[in-house]
Amino acid sequence: MTRLITLLTDFGTADGYVGEMKGVLATGAAGAALVDVAHDVAPHDVDGARLALARYWRKFPGGTVHVVVVDPGVGTDRAALAVESEGRFLVGPDNGVLSPALLQPGMRCVSLPIPAGAAPTFHGRDVFAPAAAELAQGISLDALGEPVAAPIVRRTPEAVRREDGTIAGVVITIDRFGNAVTNLMARRGGVLVVGERRLALSRSYGDAVPGAPVALVGSSGLVEIALRDGNAAAHLGLGRGSAIVLVPPAG
Amino acid sequence: MTRLITLLTDFGTADGYVGEMKGVLATGAAGAALVDVAHDVAPHDVDGARLALARYWRKFPGGTVHVVVVDPGVGTDRAALAVESEGRFLVGPDNGVLSPALLQPGMRCVSLPIPAGAAPTFHGRDVFAPAAAELAQGISLDALGEPVAAPIVRRTPEAVRREDGTIAGVVITIDRFGNAVTNLMARRGGVLVVGERRLALSRSYGDAVPGAPVALVGSSGLVEIALRDGNAAAHLGLGRGSAIVLVPPAG
Amino acid sequence: MTRLITLLTDFGTADGYVGEMKGVLATGAAGAALVDVAHDVAPHDVDGARLALARYWRKFPGGTVHVVVVDPGVGTDRAALAVESEGRFLVGPDNGVLSPALLQPGMRCVSLPIPAGAAPTFHGRDVFAPAAAELAQGISLDALGEPVAAPIVRRTPEAVRREDGTIAGVVITIDRFGNAVTNLMARRGGVLVVGERRLALSRSYGDAVPGAPVALVGSSGLVEIALRDGNAAAHLGLGRGSAIVLVPPAG
Repeated sequence: MTRLITLLTDFGTADGYVGEMKGVLATGAAGAALVDVAHDVAPHDVDGARLALARYWRKFPGGTVHVVVVDPGVGTDRAALAVESEGRFLVGPDNGVLSPALLQPGMRCVSLPIPAGAAPTFHGRDVFAPAAAELAQGISLDALGEPVAAPIVRRTPEAVRREDGTIAGVVITIDRFGNAVTNLMARRGGVLVVGERRLALSRSYGDAVPGAPVALVGSSGLVEIALRDGNAAAHLGLGRGSAIVLVPPAG
Repeated sequence: MTRLITLLTDFGTADGYVGEMKGVLATGAAGAALVDVAHDVAPHDVDGARLALARYWRKFPGGTVHVVVVDPGVGTDRAALAVESEGRFLVGPDNGVLSPALLQPGMRCVSLPIPAGAAPTFHGRDVFAPAAAELAQGISLDALGEPVAAPIVRRTPEAVRREDGTIAGVVITIDRFGNAVTNLMARRGGVLVVGERRLALSRSYGDAVPGAPVALVGSSGLVEIALRDGNAAAHLGLGRGSAIVLVPPAG
Repeated sequence: MTRLITLLTDFGTADGYVGEMKGVLATGAAGAALVDVAHDVAPHDVDGARLALARYWRKFPGGTVHVVVVDPGVGTDRAALAVESEGRFLVGPDNGVLSPALLQPGMRCVSLPIPAGAAPTFHGRDVFAPAAAELAQGISLDALGEPVAAPIVRRTPEAVRREDGTIAGVVITIDRFGNAVTNLMARRGGVLVVGERRLALSRSYGDAVPGAPVALVGSSGLVEIALRDGNAAAHLGLGRGSAIVLVPPAG
């Protein structure tokens, strides 16, 4: 069976850093298939990478190795992690970017040693890619390093139910289309209050009137604010952390 | 034989949506090779994706499955298509983006059912990727849905021969280099009239004087306007739909 | 063994040109794995592509075929090259972009014939991809063309030791993070003079104070100027060619 190795970084591609990592992976794990997820994560955007990872890591088959290198602390004493969780493997820095996998029950996590010759500025090439290649070759997690008891976890802020029955949330990310994704679940529908606007929850982008913002439940189950044929975040002045409120349906 | 699955979307990559699709494909079609065409099509640019698809779809071997998701109407009642044409398979929305394959004689086209659990905002993950995985596994087109008699087709506007023998055309797209690609064929050479400029058809970019615009026959057989060491579209104020005229050679 | 074919171009991806090349490669070299390095090299940036190639080409396993198409002279009489160097193969235009491989002892280089039907504007599709497919299929370099005695080589400018013992260098590229990479080696440490600033060489980005520029030895062994949590090049007004000076440690 072909092992898969996916890559998520903030390196861009034009400088050749990702090329170096792929060369190390192809050399160390002959026959593994390399799958790009993204390299255009905003530089040092650990939270953006974490939220992207949450989307895809369990969609891949068991045994897949996910390489995640958004690593502003490279070269400091932050740990380098390898993780086994839900039958998938992950490698990346101990800065919370791997949280979606770290939060699962039964996950195991080890700390990768930093080889003497590793470039302090490029653990993607010298630490994470070699470890990923070993995992793809079937080497066990335990052989790669010592167990880590408490890796850093970053959580999406939880929505807060208030005394008046409404739920206070925030925008957690803006996607390429300008959709503002929130931390709110809304299985029962309701009305979203965004600044001075009140948006009834719709079913899909297609329900929206062009030019008018719409709130709907997105593909991850979270409420999003969209603008048909436009950029909702720009239109409404929303960014990460913008406050919004859900008014659940009566009854 | 390894089946190939190509991907063309307007999703960007940083949000992880393409990662989700790749996970579904890798799970559903183990061993298939995933090949990125592009994810940076301008958001909702159905025509841009259609013109890109026209370039590459038949360059791949028979049996290749092309996934094309530029889908501003996701979640409306637009149909979801699977197509077999010229020995290749394609999946994508019924908005004309698949036209290059739909226009071939002998093509067959079915409508994919939308599963009850599909996210109304993400058919790429929940409808098109699963169908592509099935096609890559060798499941027949007919097993995927009911035949569609008249899928939506978008055509590149045809150039018009005028009474005075000249041919009126338009710019159909601007590429990354700023080359303005037109809808004109010019096998016999001639002179291109662009605003107040008259450009004799050249053989290649290399024939151009730096700083001076040049007209030539591009790699798809269409007349392009280029600027050596510069951006022709910006220099000449050209965009999609800009009118140009070809004066064929005498005789 | 699966042959690998990597791709580095300045084509972007949205126009479908890279898709065409991949189709030609997949058709001509069935079973080879296609690995993207980058397609977002700045248009016509031969030096940027050359520096990226220098990073990755030898990281891939022996037998890998590297396709490098940054080719402002396409359609002129510049030669089209295929190269064997250090056990890897490369194809690309004779404009210096392949220099990292051309500079190795024992390299061999042939000139690819331009087929009569090749588009003068797209040798990536009609010359380089077919040659790469042949190399990936095991066809020998010598079968592809006539030997080239003196391909064009571009060298990174060498740093100059001055009478006072200091070393004069330049910035050779700016990476996505705004790090300014120089042509200086600094195995013994020292102080970097950048305009009116004097920066002691540090070990890693992590050693830097946020907001203060730092000089360090990067992952290729070259001195870089970085800014923790910021863009050093923008902050200091550095670009390619900016002059800097290294003051080696005393003794």
